[in-house]
Amino acid sequence: MENFVYSIPTKVYFGKGQIKNLGRETAGYAKKVLLVYGGGSIKRNGIYDAVVDQLKAHDIAWEELSGVEPNPRLTTVQKGADICKEKKIQAVLPIGGGSTLDCAKVIAAAAGYDGDSWDLVIDPGKITCVLPIIAVLTLAATGSEMDTFAVITNEATQDKIGTGSPLMRPVVSFMDPEYTFSVSAYQTGAGTADMMSHIFEAYFSNTQGYMQDRVAEALLKTCIRYGVKAIENPDDYEARANLMWVSSWAINDFISLGKPVAWTVHPMEHELSAYYDITHGAGLAILTPHWMRYVLSDATVDKFYTYGVNVWNIPEDDDRYKVANEAIDRTAAYFKALGMPSTLKEVGIDASLLPVMAKKAAARLKGAYVELTEEQVLDIFRKAL
Amino acid sequence: MENFVYSIPTKVYFGKGQIKNLGRETAGYAKKVLLVYGGGSIKRNGIYDAVVDQLKAHDIAWEELSGVEPNPRLTTVQKGADICKEKKIQAVLPIGGGSTLDCAKVIAAAAGYDGDSWDLVIDPGKITCVLPIIAVLTLAATGSEMDTFAVITNEATQDKIGTGSPLMRPVVSFMDPEYTFSVSAYQTGAGTADMMSHIFEAYFSNTQGYMQDRVAEALLKTCIRYGVKAIENPDDYEARANLMWVSSWAINDFISLGKPVAWTVHPMEHELSAYYDITHGAGLAILTPHWMRYVLSDATVDKFYTYGVNVWNIPEDDDRYKVANEAIDRTAAYFKALGMPSTLKEVGIDASLLPVMAKKAAARLKGAYVELTEEQVLDIFRKAL
Repeated sequence: MENFVYSIPTKVYFGKGQIKNLGRETAGYAKKVLLVYGGGSIKRNGIYDAVVDQLKAHDIAWEELSGVEPNPRLTTVQKGADICKEKKIQAVLPIGGGSTLDCAKVIAAAAGYDGDSWDLVIDPGKITCVLPIIAVLTLAATGSEMDTFAVITNEATQDKIGTGSPLMRPVVSFMDPEYTFSVSAYQTGAGTADMMSHIFEAYFSNTQGYMQDRVAEALLKTCIRYGVKAIENPDDYEARANLMWVSSWAINDFISLGKPVAWTVHPMEHELSAYYDITHGAGLAILTPHWMRYVLSDATVDKFYTYGVNVWNIPEDDDRYKVANEAIDRTAAYFKALGMPSTLKEVGIDASLLPVMAKKAAARLKGAYVELTEEQVLDIFRKAL
Repeated sequence: MENFVYSIPTKVYFGKGQIKNLGRETAGYAKKVLLVYGGGSIKRNGIYDAVVDQLKAHDIAWEELSGVEPNPRLTTVQKGADICKEKKIQAVLPIGGGSTLDCAKVIAAAAGYDGDSWDLVIDPGKITCVLPIIAVLTLAATGSEMDTFAVITNEATQDKIGTGSPLMRPVVSFMDPEYTFSVSAYQTGAGTADMMSHIFEAYFSNTQGYMQDRVAEALLKTCIRYGVKAIENPDDYEARANLMWVSSWAINDFISLGKPVAWTVHPMEHELSAYYDITHGAGLAILTPHWMRYVLSDATVDKFYTYGVNVWNIPEDDDRYKVANEAIDRTAAYFKALGMPSTLKEVGIDASLLPVMAKKAAARLKGAYVELTEEQVLDIFRKAL
């Protein structure tokens, strides 16, 4: 286990009706906030009204930025930052899923930055002053409600890049599983695939961390138990609650502290969704099994064996490759059961841009569990066609 | 899963040599601190000097309270609180294991309280103002470094009672696994039994919490893997690091949030160590298997079955009691392997005070996984003789 500093100060109000604490908590940080959201669904399902009622009851003024995209764009970030500066906003209050939260995080950072917002994405070191972020989560997936990261798309350059800073971790998050009852089967599946991928990115590392790995397996088992259940029965509170809580812990640092590793599949997928605007979780579901098969070797078979035995309850066997391969097959089958595509063709991606995307992705894989060259990334993309 | 509020803001510096950050962190909270410690071991092993060097380098003044007992006493708490008031102390800095940390926590609370310190133990609601606590941990066991609790013994009344407040959670904890290399085999075993008991107290509840339970199993597996290893090879860094990190997570709220339950075995053991001053972990190791056998019934067999399959890798079987009983047997055997006693006689406890202790313990079991009457607690005590 390597040295680390643990600090996850986000306060989480979890459960039915917890929104009733939003006004009081927000009043501790701000007299004027920026509401950030995507489409109109929060107005139809009553969440918008519940938030606004809380703000009114606590004399908190607000401005609004709506229309945040599924892959949030730099231009939207800039628009939000301009409102913050102009209207003297004191806190940013996103209502939505990971895209809305990510957008709000970079808005909160850009509000205290004089240059181009993109600077903060390509150089997180420039993030030095961030407005408090108070998040209302409506989708279990990215873990943005409790982590330090944000992914922004620069539509001008077709770059989709993650940035991060401890200052961007929300100060308070409201997580009501009932808010996710209306999430579609497809988005539920994609969200679950995203969480599982976050856990894989931490789990597959070359550093020892026994406790971390057992916890990662616990989180994976939770995704596997409840992902399909939530699709089959969208109002299953236990399923939605477990998925929502696991989404935070998949990526809030806990399972990766002490065993740092550079991520692999996320950077590869980010190229797909930057160029083709596909659903992030769908891209991950397509690529993950191919990546697993590609990196399976004498050097990694023990880890995949452990994954198979501990997560999929595959009986122990002297043939370690047999167990490892079965674990990968079951991973692929589970993504299918989640309603996810398994080939790039299914989401409209052909071979034309694979070399460009492979080049960009490979540049971000230094320090990964298994480092991959540009050619190897291209090979994985082609196998996924 | 029930509603909850998650907030664990303790910052943890984990790993070799992290003490180098103590001066800078402490300076953020105080110009004058109270060092709290037990015997002289921290002076022999260099930890005291390392702390003092950090304070000097950052111009932080200090007072000292030494001689904290293994079951910390109210008189010691009062002595510490008096120093804090008299010397205008701004933060309390315990160096040691759970006893020292618990003592420091109540000192930090009593420093801001005008009445008798015992009031804060019997009525946690009176804890309203607590000096910041910065902990240096030298023993993996109680989890006091990241939790809200403290257990204090009133030697005048032979009461040993736990108190708690979110205000008593340390603001910063320093956890260097190398500090625990010198912990004796017996204390390592007792510490591991204590952690396992903390996890059991949360795990055996009547509320659903799938993710929480899988994480609890992950923590139990970590205790089981490394407890005996650390005894066999005291300088095994991975073993010490895993035990140290799991000690915090066994009790910092994470695995019990959403599935609250009143504790059972701890309150029972507190009576033993209040009357006989035995090692807490040893008392837990004696009582736990007897408690498990006593509460095993048609209502609880499924949980013990799951425990056996998931934690002890016992093969699934149609005979659920067979698996449950084997799980309990293996728990008892593991405590023995940790060098723990398995009968009360071994620690010098005879039948004479069992009725008195049973009466006191039973008064604290309302809302437990299986509620027990005074007679039932006495029965368990007798079986443990």
